[in-house]
Amino acid sequence: MTTRLIGLDWGTTHLRAYRYGEAGAVLEHRALSYGIRQLPSGGFAQAFDEATAGWPNAPVITCGMVGSRNGWRETPYLDTPADVSRLAHALTPLSLPDGRTLHLISGLRDPERPDVMRGEETQIVGVLAQHADMPWSGTLLLPGTHSKWVRITEGVVTGFATMMTGELYSLLSRHSILGGASAEAAHDDTAFQQGVHAARDSGAAGGLSNLFSARALMLDGALTSDAVPSYLSGLLIGDELRAAIAAGWADAALPVQMVGSAALCQRYADAAGVFGLRLRPAPENTTAQGLWQVATAAGLIDHASARVPTP
Amino acid sequence: MTTRLIGLDWGTTHLRAYRYGEAGAVLEHRALSYGIRQLPSGGFAQAFDEATAGWPNAPVITCGMVGSRNGWRETPYLDTPADVSRLAHALTPLSLPDGRTLHLISGLRDPERPDVMRGEETQIVGVLAQHADMPWSGTLLLPGTHSKWVRITEGVVTGFATMMTGELYSLLSRHSILGGASAEAAHDDTAFQQGVHAARDSGAAGGLSNLFSARALMLDGALTSDAVPSYLSGLLIGDELRAAIAAGWADAALPVQMVGSAALCQRYADAAGVFGLRLRPAPENTTAQGLWQVATAAGLIDHASARVPTP
Repeated sequence: MTTRLIGLDWGTTHLRAYRYGEAGAVLEHRALSYGIRQLPSGGFAQAFDEATAGWPNAPVITCGMVGSRNGWRETPYLDTPADVSRLAHALTPLSLPDGRTLHLISGLRDPERPDVMRGEETQIVGVLAQHADMPWSGTLLLPGTHSKWVRITEGVVTGFATMMTGELYSLLSRHSILGGASAEAAHDDTAFQQGVHAARDSGAAGGLSNLFSARALMLDGALTSDAVPSYLSGLLIGDELRAAIAAGWADAALPVQMVGSAALCQRYADAAGVFGLRLRPAPENTTAQGLWQVATAAGLIDHASARVPTP
Repeated sequence: MTTRLIGLDWGTTHLRAYRYGEAGAVLEHRALSYGIRQLPSGGFAQAFDEATAGWPNAPVITCGMVGSRNGWRETPYLDTPADVSRLAHALTPLSLPDGRTLHLISGLRDPERPDVMRGEETQIVGVLAQHADMPWSGTLLLPGTHSKWVRITEGVVTGFATMMTGELYSLLSRHSILGGASAEAAHDDTAFQQGVHAARDSGAAGGLSNLFSARALMLDGALTSDAVPSYLSGLLIGDELRAAIAAGWADAALPVQMVGSAALCQRYADAAGVFGLRLRPAPENTTAQGLWQVATAAGLIDHASARVPTP
């Protein structure tokens, strides 16, 4: 089948390459460990060559940290409100040694907060493409190292907030006085729910002001040291939900659509009930779809192949 | 002069030894790096011998992590409410090889929260001794790695809360995406105040839900990377104050008495104005006084020397 597009999702620790055929069908998918902080000796060009080795010539589009200050070519942040069309019109071209052109997708900036994202904008475009007939409004939640709460108004990103929940969990488990669980410690749902409730009951002070409770409960014998990570996870995810409600990103009347790994989304869904929130899971990897959508809107793909075939 | 007491403030990373004469006068003071996590090859006994080498025989009292699970002898936590008299009646004796006895002061536990302290209880006794004639009521703030907000009711510790502000600052500056300032970065008061205001303006969501703003402002050019630590310090200290007000530990009508290093207390005082709070500084090291007070209340010192001479 004809290759219509090559798409790269290029982050800090990963490089995923997609080869697309007609109508955005992914014909082949490769995952390499060449994130922008762990490149091979030949740098970006070598990583690109390896990721696309043997693939036919086709337009190339990328998203993620490859467009950051420490990436291959820095691209500016686009201010919200922004949608697929604005992203498509703001691609940054980079000429490759072999004469081809790489098109970099910009990140987004919320001028109201301030806040930034890079890579997630493409994931969001991929989710919204599923609602292309009837532009979607609501809140998207992309949980992770830097969780994003994203307000969508009729298919347009109108604002967003980042919470460093995943990074805080990693820092506290690995480097703080709250660490020290054994490597075999399994998820403990009772401790997780205890953490979620502690976050909810923290009220306006906030669950993060109560992090030390993990230590006190352990010294008290109320938590085993192996249950501390689950308690901490519940406290941090619970506090993210508490803060999101307090800041108006979520409320019980408005379903929130999650985008992310099934395991992590399940944790958030487990915590959400305590707050009376409904969090709906979504397909895991929507970046591949998003890359295709932006390329299509930018006219990188010829019209006939871009159109989704009508049955 | 006669040695009436030897007092040890023995923490995780430090060992301070005091030799007292009449009426609690400190005749000599030694500081060693033998915290309980960095003992010499001969362990606790060797550290003790070095700290007190050449000092006459006298009763010995200690406070701090030396009484923790990983210390020389574990002592239980005393539940609040607690005061100097309860601490004095709950000393844990440890017989030394040379026949002497070391008396360990217990930490405190707040059964309502739950929360614990170990070492600070002695510092608190030292502060309160300054108000012995008229038992003091109010809030004490001991800022630091694990900041303590302590409610005192007529000289009795009736409750407390720990916030991990100092540890979070250290983790985020050293290990997170918010690190990366140069070693020469100096304190930037404008950035500090910007962080304090961000915490205040975060409302019920809380400043810690807005940590990523440090990154966004830096990428935006609104903060230099060397100003990020000051912004982060302002955001974290500001959020500690915001949470303390929200949880009822402090309000504008009630002056809060700080106990801690002058430099750190100054930062807290700088932040407090934004919240309309008054934070009063106190003498830096009140642990030495606290050790003497507990020893006196426990009857370790004979009556004549314990009495403070009347002018």
